[in-house]
Amino acid sequence: MGNILIKNIYRCGKRGDVLICQNKIAKIAESIELKENLSRDCEVIDGTGKALIPGFANMHTHAAMTLMRGAEEDSKLKHWLKSIWALEAKLDEELVYYGTKLACIEMIKSGTTLFNDQYFFTRAAVKAAEEIGIRSWHSQVFLDLGNNMAAMKQRENCIAEYEISRGWGELNNFEVAIHAPYTVTKENIIWAKEFAAKNNLKIHIHIAETDHERLDSLRKFKCTPTQYLNELGFYGPNIIAAHCVWLDENDIQTLGKNRVTVVHNINSNLKLSSGYKFKFRELADAGANLCIGTDGVASSNNLDMLEAMKTTALVQKAWRKDPSAMPLAELLAAGSENGYKAFDLNGGKIEEGALADLCIIDIDNIYFTPNINFNANLIYSAHSDCVESVICNGNIVMRNREIKGEKEVIENVRKLYKKLFIK
Amino acid sequence: MGNILIKNIYRCGKRGDVLICQNKIAKIAESIELKENLSRDCEVIDGTGKALIPGFANMHTHAAMTLMRGAEEDSKLKHWLKSIWALEAKLDEELVYYGTKLACIEMIKSGTTLFNDQYFFTRAAVKAAEEIGIRSWHSQVFLDLGNNMAAMKQRENCIAEYEISRGWGELNNFEVAIHAPYTVTKENIIWAKEFAAKNNLKIHIHIAETDHERLDSLRKFKCTPTQYLNELGFYGPNIIAAHCVWLDENDIQTLGKNRVTVVHNINSNLKLSSGYKFKFRELADAGANLCIGTDGVASSNNLDMLEAMKTTALVQKAWRKDPSAMPLAELLAAGSENGYKAFDLNGGKIEEGALADLCIIDIDNIYFTPNINFNANLIYSAHSDCVESVICNGNIVMRNREIKGEKEVIENVRKLYKKLFIK
Repeated sequence: MGNILIKNIYRCGKRGDVLICQNKIAKIAESIELKENLSRDCEVIDGTGKALIPGFANMHTHAAMTLMRGAEEDSKLKHWLKSIWALEAKLDEELVYYGTKLACIEMIKSGTTLFNDQYFFTRAAVKAAEEIGIRSWHSQVFLDLGNNMAAMKQRENCIAEYEISRGWGELNNFEVAIHAPYTVTKENIIWAKEFAAKNNLKIHIHIAETDHERLDSLRKFKCTPTQYLNELGFYGPNIIAAHCVWLDENDIQTLGKNRVTVVHNINSNLKLSSGYKFKFRELADAGANLCIGTDGVASSNNLDMLEAMKTTALVQKAWRKDPSAMPLAELLAAGSENGYKAFDLNGGKIEEGALADLCIIDIDNIYFTPNINFNANLIYSAHSDCVESVICNGNIVMRNREIKGEKEVIENVRKLYKKLFIK
Repeated sequence: MGNILIKNIYRCGKRGDVLICQNKIAKIAESIELKENLSRDCEVIDGTGKALIPGFANMHTHAAMTLMRGAEEDSKLKHWLKSIWALEAKLDEELVYYGTKLACIEMIKSGTTLFNDQYFFTRAAVKAAEEIGIRSWHSQVFLDLGNNMAAMKQRENCIAEYEISRGWGELNNFEVAIHAPYTVTKENIIWAKEFAAKNNLKIHIHIAETDHERLDSLRKFKCTPTQYLNELGFYGPNIIAAHCVWLDENDIQTLGKNRVTVVHNINSNLKLSSGYKFKFRELADAGANLCIGTDGVASSNNLDMLEAMKTTALVQKAWRKDPSAMPLAELLAAGSENGYKAFDLNGGKIEEGALADLCIIDIDNIYFTPNINFNANLIYSAHSDCVESVICNGNIVMRNREIKGEKEVIENVRKLYKKLFIK
């Protein structure tokens, strides 16, 4: 980690220079001259024909599911689940390592500098993320299906994994994960919540993804999934809740009042027909922290945050019958800054003092021609291939679309994924 | 136009060779050896690590609207229309030439080999398309708003333009365009229909784009826009109808029975909040020819057919609550072959005898890793930047993502578009 001076780059509507010292944005000005004491250890990047944007925060994914890209298509949800679970039963350390590494490379290449993972073989995933140099959160997942033995084992694993996580790299972090209110016992949810509180950890959970889940909860618990957790005293600003597609007004107020981070995963929700009338506006107005995720590649097929942002906006405008729904600035904050906020980080924005998690965008192409509205061009016109270089925590992790080891990871995944399909 | 032999390329699930002679696919086989009489005039392309797919048919666009990319964002429809119409009033030959040329380059770069344009300054648009070497249909647009003088002038222009079109290049074709049933007088619609029938021309029209249009029609004509045209004896297989979002069962049967080509433009429909419950399945079952378009860049922001296909499928799956809705094979046919069918062409497919309108896709990357389901990877995972080279009518119009003149067109559009904003 040295210092980087980016000269003459377009950002937030004007051109200028940006100086990165260590892992933070040190100075933003029309022109910055290198001082003698800095110039020895400073890389200078010419930003002409380029723009600087914050890195994206992919706030809900199952990274190693890259191994299952396209494995189950155009099939009904029940069949899809059965098929994917059968593949997951065959996962091992090596597969998760390469699957996560492919995911990290894909995320960096599409401008993501932070991701929130929920998967298995955590140590293998962390190793992959650490090698790529991407900021990440990983967890030991609670998923006991009412089995007490499994529940106890998962508590042990959680404690052990948390201890191990103290040795992880600076960018890789531990959180508690609860699969969903309907797959984990009440006792285990309470235990996990208390463990997280005691150790100042976030909790990553799926809530109200499908109408089926909502109806089941109404039958079984006489309340919505959101209220079921509320009655356990579950909510607070440390909760990161993925999906939340099926909420009533009371649920929205509960999540808002408790400053919960809610992660919208539109491409997955559309593709699996889970629902799309996500209450972005209402949740934000109620006080929730709105973020965007891609979900896993088995359902979303890629990990592209620009695509996720575009689809989010298009679908909000459509179902609300209001083309002014989902203004660009709010959409971009949901894709970057709000994700950093969820983890109490000053990042996902271009400001002095913020973390240097940044993307250099090539704007010398068709998709930014003309460049009347840069944000609209970025979200609605361009593809993530316009991401030319990526800086994460002050390190250049991709330079001119090159990431060290990419070829080897692709080759290994192409060989190894076949293990999932051995009968 | 010479001959091209593509060796060892992946297509439809297997590897093999494809020989193009003149403007057609001459032979497809596991291995093709060059004969002496052919080898002098034959380019050989190594297809290793690549796939061959048919070029896409963008069946509804207003090409030169690239000039207005991002010009009006996040605003209500009424304001959007006012703003875009004000810009269009300032168009001239030079602007349409460069705007269309940028569009043609963007379409080729994203794998489109045929487009159906409806815009102004036709000759300038045709010149641009001819220079790029893309297959295209252009028209003189009827849009009289009930003004008899304008209607007469447009008939004259239509006749004159049709005469001129006989001198256009082999790939560039004339059709009749009617803006919409609510913007053209009944007499003019009938005249245009008869002119098209007499000269064996297609008719390109917008029908039932918004609920507002449907309600207006019910008030004014006591029937839907679709039935209003039906009562004029309008329909037949030469009609290419864009949008058709607001149809009832009777409308669906009318369009199906008459073998109308219906063009779905989902990204524009979502962004302008026009509606999204498009009856793809029902229209196809009734007998209509289902195609996909991007609409103009002022609403859709880009001309990316892969994106249009992806969003089409996601939204069909979502609003129908059925993840098996919109199978990949049907989606790809709508994006390629059906467009060629609409113009009575044997193209948009990889078969001996079909037109050589083809894309070579780079599959040696993350988005095709693993490659369990090539079509799913193409539509749902990859971006159109994976299009490496494009062949149109047997000519290589893009080679390794390079198109002659791209830089100059970008520079000119960046200068010239400002003319639209001069008060």
